[in-house]
Formats: sequence, structure tokens, C-alpha cells
Amino acid sequence: MSENTGGKRSLGAKTLAVPTPVWLVAAYDSGGKPNVMTIAWGGICCSDPPCVAVSLRKATYTYGCITARRAFTVNVPGEELLKQTDLCGIITGKTSDKFKEAGFTAVKAEKVDAPAVQECKLILECRLAHTFELGLHTQFVGEIVDVKAAPEILTDGSLDMGKVKPMLFDPGTCSYFGTGELLGKAFSVGKKS
Amino acid sequence: MSENTGGKRSLGAKTLAVPTPVWLVAAYDSGGKPNVMTIAWGGICCSDPPCVAVSLRKATYTYGCITARRAFTVNVPGEELLKQTDLCGIITGKTSDKFKEAGFTAVKAEKVDAPAVQECKLILECRLAHTFELGLHTQFVGEIVDVKAAPEILTDGSLDMGKVKPMLFDPGTCSYFGTGELLGKAFSVGKKS
Repeated sequence: MSENTGGKRSLGAKTLAVPTPVWLVAAYDSGGKPNVMTIAWGGICCSDPPCVAVSLRKATYTYGCITARRAFTVNVPGEELLKQTDLCGIITGKTSDKFKEAGFTAVKAEKVDAPAVQECKLILECRLAHTFELGLHTQFVGEIVDVKAAPEILTDGSLDMGKVKPMLFDPGTCSYFGTGELLGKAFSVGKKS
Repeated sequence: MSENTGGKRSLGAKTLAVPTPVWLVAAYDSGGKPNVMTIAWGGICCSDPPCVAVSLRKATYTYGCITARRAFTVNVPGEELLKQTDLCGIITGKTSDKFKEAGFTAVKAEKVDAPAVQECKLILECRLAHTFELGLHTQFVGEIVDVKAAPEILTDGSLDMGKVKPMLFDPGTCSYFGTGELLGKAFSVGKKS
């Protein structure tokens, strides 16, 4: 390894980025059964139109659901839903009713043809806008047509991550972490006086 | 709003997802000057080949850098770099040397034609693989050709997010949050016995 990396070690060509989100992606299958899966490969990808990207393997049951109905929801579980959320990353919708197994309630999203997870306090309703084949994963870019939030995660009417307490996934240790303390205001704390 | 949302409120079509990462994207401009900017619109998007996506507006100086050199690094700042990281989201490389202004050290990445931020303990070296025009933002998908990590963020040789202490961006309150406590093992904690 070259000297200029300051003593860092090479870990190879791996998906070792942190933090990654822990989100529940939900969609109806072609028969109308709601399905949900846990993902960590995703993120916001455009401000206008507002879009969120989620990457799924073709082998997942949810892949076929999103392709068929061209809509999905991104449901953000708080840390109180740790066990149920982990379960939705273990079992498959091919052979089970994942909403039922996890104890989640499927409700129809208001503005798109997809189910939402009632127990999640933050829900993004998405219309499939783009499908990008990247390799093992396919990236679905959803246009966010509405965001639904429980009153208890709002501060002065705005979403407050400190109240959502979303989980983080660490690909390195294959573990979940919680949300930490407020550190400071963006576009402000680093300003030179 | 429909009754089935369980009392949730509509916040409209907005990029209100949490958590979003706080990453420093670095690239050389056409003249070889290293530039760096703070982003929160990004995430892992494919496992094989390993890829990470970052979204930038065309108006940013870094946009032209990545387009010209077809390479970039994703540098993950720990919370100890809060102020410097915020500053890199405020000033522009068009009229300033952002590495110098932020007190960051630019080092050449080992495997791609891009600078890295020496002070960041986790660095992803990326080759530009895809460019997707989504609207206000352009999504650059980088193939991760190597990951460099400082020894102090490793546990038994593996990356440990608990040691990196990456920051999170909350688009709702426009604030940074820290990484919280370890909650449990993935693909394990939710297993039914």
C-alpha cells in the first residue's frame, strides 16, 4: 500500500460504507398480496423531482412486486421495531405472509398502488420512475409523491430525526446501530466567523 | 387524508427520508486541483460489482471534476470532523481551495485518479461507472475499487461503525446527528426461536 494513505489498510473492493439506512420497502404482488422487505442499500438521490433509490436483488420477492405494480413505499422503522425489521430481512414473501409473520399491519398507501407499514411513523409513497440494472442489484428510483408522518415525530410541524430514531446498518460488523445525539445545525456549525 | 394512515399527516412530496449519510466526495478538477464537497444524497447501490451512488447538482464544482476525471472518493468523516465537514457544504471550490479552507489534507487515492481526505478514517476509492440524470441532481454511480481504513476503526480486522462514528443528516431539521449505540446483530436479532 502506498505511503500517502496515512497508515490506512486496504480492505479490498467491498461495500463498506457507513452509515447505511434500515428501511422497509413494501409493494403488492401481482395478486394483490402485500409484501415487505428490509433493505440497507438505498438513499435519497434527487431533490427535484424528489426521489429515493432502493436496490434489490432480482431473486427477492419484492423485486417482482415493484416491477409489476410500478410503485412502492419506503417505511422507516424506529429502533422500537428492531426485531420485526430484522425478521423481514430473513424470511421471504415467496412462501410466507411477511406482514403477518412480523406482526405488521398493511395499509393501502394514499397516493400510490402499494401497501405501507402502519407501525412505521414515517412513510414515503413512491411511484417507480427509473429502473437501473447495476449488476447483482437493480436500483429502483422512486419519485416521492407524498410523505406521511406520525404527529409524534414532528417538531414545529417538521420531521425530526431525533424523534424517529431510525436504525443504521453496519455492513462491516453486520449489525444495527441506533441514532445518536444532535451534533449541530447544518450549513451553520462550520461557518467561519 | 384517508383514515387508514393511522392518524399520520401528509408532509407533501419532499425528500424527507432518514437517516441520510454525511459524506465528503472528492475529485480533481481538469487542472489537477483537488476539490471536496459534503453530500447527504447517496448510498450503497450494488453488491457485485460493489457500487456506491452519490447525487450532485450540475451547479457544483465537484460535478465538473467527476465528469472530467471519471473518478472520485467517498470519504466518511467521523463526528470529530463536524465543523470541517459542514464548511465543505457551505463554500464552493469555484473560488476557493476547499481542502485548505477546511484544514483537510489531500492525498492521491491509490487506485483511482482522485484525491482522498487524509483526516477521514474510512475512504472508498471509486471509478465512475454510470451517470444518471434524474432532474436537479445527477446520480454518479461509482464502482468501489478499494476501501482504505485506519487501523483504529477496525475490530478483528473488520470495519466497525461504532468506531467510525459517522454523522447522519436530518433533512427535516437540517441538522447533524451522531451514531448511536449498538442495537443487535443483523439476520439474527429478529429470528423466531
